[in-house]
Amino acid sequence: MGRPKITVVGAGNVGGTVAQRLAEKNAYDVVLVDIVPGIPQGKALDITQAGPVCGYSTRVVGTNGYDETAGSSIAVITSGIPRKPGMSRDELLATNAKIVKTVVRELVSRSPNIILILVTNPLDAMVHVARQVSGLPKSRVLGMAGVLDTARLRSFVAEELNVPGTEVQAMVLGGHGDTMVPLVRQTTVTGKPITDRLAPDRLAALIKRTQDGGAEIVGLLKTGSAFYAPSASAVDMVEAIMNDQKRVVPCAMLCEGEYGLKDVIVGVPVTLGRSGGESIVEYDLTAEERTALQASADAVRDLCAVVDRLLTA
Amino acid sequence: MGRPKITVVGAGNVGGTVAQRLAEKNAYDVVLVDIVPGIPQGKALDITQAGPVCGYSTRVVGTNGYDETAGSSIAVITSGIPRKPGMSRDELLATNAKIVKTVVRELVSRSPNIILILVTNPLDAMVHVARQVSGLPKSRVLGMAGVLDTARLRSFVAEELNVPGTEVQAMVLGGHGDTMVPLVRQTTVTGKPITDRLAPDRLAALIKRTQDGGAEIVGLLKTGSAFYAPSASAVDMVEAIMNDQKRVVPCAMLCEGEYGLKDVIVGVPVTLGRSGGESIVEYDLTAEERTALQASADAVRDLCAVVDRLLTA
Amino acid sequence: MGRPKITVVGAGNVGGTVAQRLAEKNAYDVVLVDIVPGIPQGKALDITQAGPVCGYSTRVVGTNGYDETAGSSIAVITSGIPRKPGMSRDELLATNAKIVKTVVRELVSRSPNIILILVTNPLDAMVHVARQVSGLPKSRVLGMAGVLDTARLRSFVAEELNVPGTEVQAMVLGGHGDTMVPLVRQTTVTGKPITDRLAPDRLAALIKRTQDGGAEIVGLLKTGSAFYAPSASAVDMVEAIMNDQKRVVPCAMLCEGEYGLKDVIVGVPVTLGRSGGESIVEYDLTAEERTALQASADAVRDLCAVVDRLLTA
Amino acid sequence: MGRPKITVVGAGNVGGTVAQRLAEKNAYDVVLVDIVPGIPQGKALDITQAGPVCGYSTRVVGTNGYDETAGSSIAVITSGIPRKPGMSRDELLATNAKIVKTVVRELVSRSPNIILILVTNPLDAMVHVARQVSGLPKSRVLGMAGVLDTARLRSFVAEELNVPGTEVQAMVLGGHGDTMVPLVRQTTVTGKPITDRLAPDRLAALIKRTQDGGAEIVGLLKTGSAFYAPSASAVDMVEAIMNDQKRVVPCAMLCEGEYGLKDVIVGVPVTLGRSGGESIVEYDLTAEERTALQASADAVRDLCAVVDRLLTA
Repeated sequence: MGRPKITVVGAGNVGGTVAQRLAEKNAYDVVLVDIVPGIPQGKALDITQAGPVCGYSTRVVGTNGYDETAGSSIAVITSGIPRKPGMSRDELLATNAKIVKTVVRELVSRSPNIILILVTNPLDAMVHVARQVSGLPKSRVLGMAGVLDTARLRSFVAEELNVPGTEVQAMVLGGHGDTMVPLVRQTTVTGKPITDRLAPDRLAALIKRTQDGGAEIVGLLKTGSAFYAPSASAVDMVEAIMNDQKRVVPCAMLCEGEYGLKDVIVGVPVTLGRSGGESIVEYDLTAEERTALQASADAVRDLCAVVDRLLTA
Repeated sequence: MGRPKITVVGAGNVGGTVAQRLAEKNAYDVVLVDIVPGIPQGKALDITQAGPVCGYSTRVVGTNGYDETAGSSIAVITSGIPRKPGMSRDELLATNAKIVKTVVRELVSRSPNIILILVTNPLDAMVHVARQVSGLPKSRVLGMAGVLDTARLRSFVAEELNVPGTEVQAMVLGGHGDTMVPLVRQTTVTGKPITDRLAPDRLAALIKRTQDGGAEIVGLLKTGSAFYAPSASAVDMVEAIMNDQKRVVPCAMLCEGEYGLKDVIVGVPVTLGRSGGESIVEYDLTAEERTALQASADAVRDLCAVVDRLLTA
Repeated sequence: MGRPKITVVGAGNVGGTVAQRLAEKNAYDVVLVDIVPGIPQGKALDITQAGPVCGYSTRVVGTNGYDETAGSSIAVITSGIPRKPGMSRDELLATNAKIVKTVVRELVSRSPNIILILVTNPLDAMVHVARQVSGLPKSRVLGMAGVLDTARLRSFVAEELNVPGTEVQAMVLGGHGDTMVPLVRQTTVTGKPITDRLAPDRLAALIKRTQDGGAEIVGLLKTGSAFYAPSASAVDMVEAIMNDQKRVVPCAMLCEGEYGLKDVIVGVPVTLGRSGGESIVEYDLTAEERTALQASADAVRDLCAVVDRLLTA
Repeated sequence: MGRPKITVVGAGNVGGTVAQRLAEKNAYDVVLVDIVPGIPQGKALDITQAGPVCGYSTRVVGTNGYDETAGSSIAVITSGIPRKPGMSRDELLATNAKIVKTVVRELVSRSPNIILILVTNPLDAMVHVARQVSGLPKSRVLGMAGVLDTARLRSFVAEELNVPGTEVQAMVLGGHGDTMVPLVRQTTVTGKPITDRLAPDRLAALIKRTQDGGAEIVGLLKTGSAFYAPSASAVDMVEAIMNDQKRVVPCAMLCEGEYGLKDVIVGVPVTLGRSGGESIVEYDLTAEERTALQASADAVRDLCAVVDRLLTA
């Protein structure tokens, strides 16, 4: 009985920084997996060497295989490719679905009690793939999108009103990106309704900016995409689960009737605890929000149908 | 009177991660400067968006200019190029010396009370350039190498003996890399002399591995170099200074007689506090260590002579 | 230029634990003052000895005088006596007012730029005394009550609904104790209105329990009163100020027109930053809340009139 | 599967502050047990109410019974009485031995896999009692004294030399108090041998002061004894165990041949990990240290013989 093991799949910027953040907790063994030889080993070594300075003694193992992942409590799956010029949406979908399929099989065969946190895009579809392949109960297959979308919205509102981001509360439902549904009535600034502080058009602009939040950073970095906030968001979910915090966090998870949604994976407020996604919290939605959430769910359903076709083709 | 301002110059992996780590302290304003348009802005935005998740409300500003750095308490300078194939050592030296020269001028003209922490290589020579250009007292121009070298040595010893890195203590003097001088009598494992636990040839092998520590990671990552441990090391120095910790930390700093070294910048144990490098701590050295330190200082002196010639050419 | 200095006056359980919590931040010099010989010295020594274990190197000085407090950025004033059997309310008021008067004079004469955080009861009257005696601007004389009352309410709601206390948000206005005015519309559980989760009578019971929160703990401890949550609340204010967090925190502060209140000290939401109480945030109140706040302010005004009479008698 | 449970027995200053420090880790369920009605409940409530302010959501339960302790991973036992005027040493010993006997029986019957950390004095004898009563393997019955003694010595040396306590390393063996054996060769200041920095008579004075460290604080506080550093020391052991840190920490533990000691409980350097005291680290001792350790062990053996007689009487 040593430290619980957390596996991170994909040693790019997101995966590497997830491993860094987990190492800093000084409470887990961390395994960093990537197919590219050298990368996970090099990053694991670099993170390990920061330990004596930062005061942690986390064992971080980098590997190109899965044997070291055996007995993991959680895996954060960040592997997958970004969309490249000239690549069709379906090509992207097929490629990442295949990657996730392989990764999930490797993981689950060695860690039957694992909880999966998907970060690979398109997020909701990848959660769907992971569920299909793994056969795990819905509580143990979650997607990270809402924490990040919420963080971005909070951050934009904070900048606009010149308050700290920690003073802004928000909740988003729905898919990641265009189909994100922010709950305006759950959005507050120092406890006051956002609508008291921001004109509707400004709020709409910030919501639009949030929906395009990933693209904005890609536009700035040009040859890279966001990783500091995405990695923080994934680690926030890991901590809520491992420390049994029972915190309500927006996650992608299978709905079975909640919010009137049947058998579809979509971003909803989930109580995270030691069993994973322990329950879905239902807020009162406005008619508009309900419609938007339905549209978001429909889009996910279509995508999942495409994925199913691609994977069985 | 708000938060003290820390500037990070260079928004690559090292500089970006320095900014991340500083932001997480929730005690500073952070300015991230880089000449490439978009990169510092994109990374600053990404770090800011992680704030609501991680619980910090640090203002992180990305910029291509220096006006935002005015009034900085400390600057961590990470800018510079790595050595490229076909590039002579002198070309590299000349290029980075010019970069550091420009950066330091821009910083000091806007922040006359600033403390500079150099990370750019070749480290000791860059500290020399920064001193020449800035005219700042020696206590306010420091180089980060020893913290990192020490961390690597601790980490390797820990792995070899299967103990946590935090249980290994070590101290290194001299230059960064080949000319690093580890003090064997200051190296202990759970308080026991390292020589009780490791045969001389194994210890020599770990010291050699530490001297090549940067290259080992480059060899693994191939298209990149270490940044997790280097950034942690630089931030460790910032914290020791800003919180007036009076901790003894190996840093590159001008010696004026200490260890028998005159007017040369070399890695020595320095007490860091609110005034910067407040004093140099002198350990008893073995004859062998003394010789190695002298050789290290001679190498730095030669390099600085080359730099002086290149910069005035 | 070393670490900023924070003074804690009163070395009882509250003051001692405030000093402990401040020491653990590893960012301040801490001075603990008490008139009883030995107590502040003994507690300072004990807190200092925990430093090597906890990883802090804070200088904690215990003293029976005020010379060591010179140059303090903030003082947390916890001194004063509790009401004893047979003691009239006016006797208590007079005694604590005299203590606060002396303490504030000693402090301000040595630290003209100090910010005062009062913890001594009756809180609002003591803030009034401190303002009168010190002549400091209202932004630099604050009372700690609302953070504690809010924490208790959040904690009771959390227990009732079996969610973590960190998932409950709340805001209280008005005085400490009976005249506390909880803002029901600012009270949420995982982002949902408290009224969705709790029946009005249950909520009323929890509010009543919060108003009697201090007495409940006295009833259990019998020979002591609460100090863990009060000390945490005071340190939360210190941190918000010292790190310039611009967080909105319920504090006792002089109102000059806000919420329709003129020249009365009462608990209101205050943005805390490096200048102290930087501004008062105004929420929309219900008619009922407005009436309750007015009654609370009236009660404070009456008490302050008594204090003024007692002190000039 | 929720958070691991840690039980604290005794809700005085030491036990209460142990519970506070454990709660702040936000990683355990904490049960605080005391026979006095109200005290554990009141302190648990107060610590819980600090949670929303400090950011933890730890469940802290106060109780006068043991049923809530079922399934504990660790218990920290702080209960016992201090020596009162007119009380013989044997009376004290008999009283605390009976308390520890009862407490251990109650704990072990409900948590067969528990690890016990004794804090009650006389420490080594109480570890002996706990082993006898529990029948637990030696790795799971530990005493907290060396961490505290070490912390005090480090703190005194730091003050004398005006360096941070975190810059001083030390190790002590032997009993708590008079029979403490500091290892001078393991004592360093910023990595330099203490003997380089302190004259032998000054070092001897600081060692004497450490041996009397508890009495010094009692002398200052008069009606109380140290609790900040003792609680930090106990929690340091809990964390080393729960996070499987494999750190070497001075603890009271049964020796079976190590340091030439047979079947006696005495303070020795112990590697703490998830199984408790996983191994004893043997340093080279000087002849003088070896003699002192032997004397310390003899004193413990005598005391244990008295305890055995008292308990079977």
